[in-house]
Amino acid sequence: MSDTPSRTELSALGEFGLIERLASRIHLVQPSSVKGIGDDAAVIDPQGLHQVVTTDMLVEGVHFDLSYAPLKHLGYKAIVVNLSDVYAMNATPRQVIVALALSNRFPVEAVDELYEGMLLACRNYGVDLVGGDTCSSRSGLIIAVTAIGAARPEDIVYRSGAKDNDLLVVSGDLGGAFMGLQILEREKAVYTETGAQPDLAGHDYILERQLKPEARKDIITLLEQMEVKPTAMIDISDGLASEAIHIARNSGLGVRIYDEKLPIDPHTYQTARDFNLDPTTCALNGGEDYELLFTIAQSDYDKIKGNPNLTVVGHMADKNSSYRLVDRQGGEHELTAQGWDAFLKRS
Amino acid sequence: MSDTPSRTELSALGEFGLIERLASRIHLVQPSSVKGIGDDAAVIDPQGLHQVVTTDMLVEGVHFDLSYAPLKHLGYKAIVVNLSDVYAMNATPRQVIVALALSNRFPVEAVDELYEGMLLACRNYGVDLVGGDTCSSRSGLIIAVTAIGAARPEDIVYRSGAKDNDLLVVSGDLGGAFMGLQILEREKAVYTETGAQPDLAGHDYILERQLKPEARKDIITLLEQMEVKPTAMIDISDGLASEAIHIARNSGLGVRIYDEKLPIDPHTYQTARDFNLDPTTCALNGGEDYELLFTIAQSDYDKIKGNPNLTVVGHMADKNSSYRLVDRQGGEHELTAQGWDAFLKRS
Repeated sequence: MSDTPSRTELSALGEFGLIERLASRIHLVQPSSVKGIGDDAAVIDPQGLHQVVTTDMLVEGVHFDLSYAPLKHLGYKAIVVNLSDVYAMNATPRQVIVALALSNRFPVEAVDELYEGMLLACRNYGVDLVGGDTCSSRSGLIIAVTAIGAARPEDIVYRSGAKDNDLLVVSGDLGGAFMGLQILEREKAVYTETGAQPDLAGHDYILERQLKPEARKDIITLLEQMEVKPTAMIDISDGLASEAIHIARNSGLGVRIYDEKLPIDPHTYQTARDFNLDPTTCALNGGEDYELLFTIAQSDYDKIKGNPNLTVVGHMADKNSSYRLVDRQGGEHELTAQGWDAFLKRS
Repeated sequence: MSDTPSRTELSALGEFGLIERLASRIHLVQPSSVKGIGDDAAVIDPQGLHQVVTTDMLVEGVHFDLSYAPLKHLGYKAIVVNLSDVYAMNATPRQVIVALALSNRFPVEAVDELYEGMLLACRNYGVDLVGGDTCSSRSGLIIAVTAIGAARPEDIVYRSGAKDNDLLVVSGDLGGAFMGLQILEREKAVYTETGAQPDLAGHDYILERQLKPEARKDIITLLEQMEVKPTAMIDISDGLASEAIHIARNSGLGVRIYDEKLPIDPHTYQTARDFNLDPTTCALNGGEDYELLFTIAQSDYDKIKGNPNLTVVGHMADKNSSYRLVDRQGGEHELTAQGWDAFLKRS
């Protein structure tokens, strides 16, 4: 009938229509998901396991910018950042619940795209979307995801279990998501000023780190295979420095991180240099890497040694030695949690 | 130092400061709450019970108006509307998780007030606040609460269990919250136009229904004492008509509601008349009553008969008889779910 792209107003479907449309696309895979969308609440059979529950809210204009974040990627990321918190407890995510507020500038097709990304993440991680709430907002898009995971009580790893002299280990590499964001913001500024098409060529890795991060399910599996149980664990959403301090503070300890040990991808490093940024600072405070940071007993070192996914970046220390960054010359600096402090940096 | 009311900027505390401030005010009471605020996720011991999980988002300018909703009441309501969903599963709420987005127009004192209301609701219902997320928004206040409850699998009541001829029963009375909202909106309009102080005198009941609703924990207890297990149950957030249709549709049945049976408080009735509104329409479609609507077998009628908290408003019927309102003259009308359809009425 028309050559223009299809646009269906949300008001044409209504809230119930939207929920039914969504529910029809969902097939539960977890035996623990007793009841999904379509009642007052989802029902979960814990199957004798403890449950871990976490929530994260993503707000348009604060956590994402739809001028460069495709809705499908955004949906994917909204799920993944929550699953990352579940893995950081050494638990297995099994269900998610999604609360969504949208203004009527979003057509049904946009909501479909967002859910496509969320459901793709659910499939990739074997998680069921079992419930939610959909309502209107006056302006932007707000996504609040709650993830529920399960673990045997004795397997759960808290932030507070680190011991003096434990090794501090990080998965993957750091600072990439932050540098991806710098690229996107630079190209947006250029586009806004000159209308020039964004030049994103060659930045695939760091752009994907920012726009479509993954949660380190593989590291949880790896640690289990290696028979290494971390003494403390956290995921890196606010930056290595901030998360290391969380572990130290919660465990009543100090921490030492060695600059020369920080795992930084060569492309992240070069991009930081191109932006006149210090790669170490990007790795320490960039945030949004969604890598796992954990502590292990020194006696477990041989088990992880040489694994390309894991890097020992420092060690825990007694409380009086505070939180320190040791530079390449052996000089010590106070480690500060700049992080993504929502009210300081992004409001 | 100063006579002006205290205003502490959120940026002075920061996100972590805010979380610590909040955590210090919380004392867990549920033995099932293994770990509350302060890790990547909360940890819950299901103690052999199934878990029910539900989430609801409240958006400023859509679900509430801070020009007449005090923050403390708003916090209370944000918790209660979620607990209501848990009770509607015939489960006991035990934990809540709160995700909050706020703009920097809110000082720390406002956040304190909001949490005061949330924690009061938690105390009143014996629920623990075990986690959350706090971030900034560009404009309004957004509150997403996830409630977690527990029940023996055989006790859980779904929307889908109603049988033909089951009685349709509602707790309390209907339409009050809607009429409370009409009063508040009228007085706001008068104030905006003329500067006249709001005249809320005499409307305590319906204002409280709107601003500080309660979840019907008492009805769940009552039903247990009466040894009545509903065949289906839902809470009334979108209006009796909408919720009755949910039960009917999910149970593959029709439903008949009798106008003359609708429980309407005299003050709600009179206020509707004063606004030239049909009290029946307000009771059917007003919404936000947070009463429980449930079906019981005819054989259970004697157990509930005469209880002042419960009213039989109709009965389930076979699928072909559709959804009907029977008026005082016996005439039948199609029952429609106007409800609070977020994208139709409120965007």
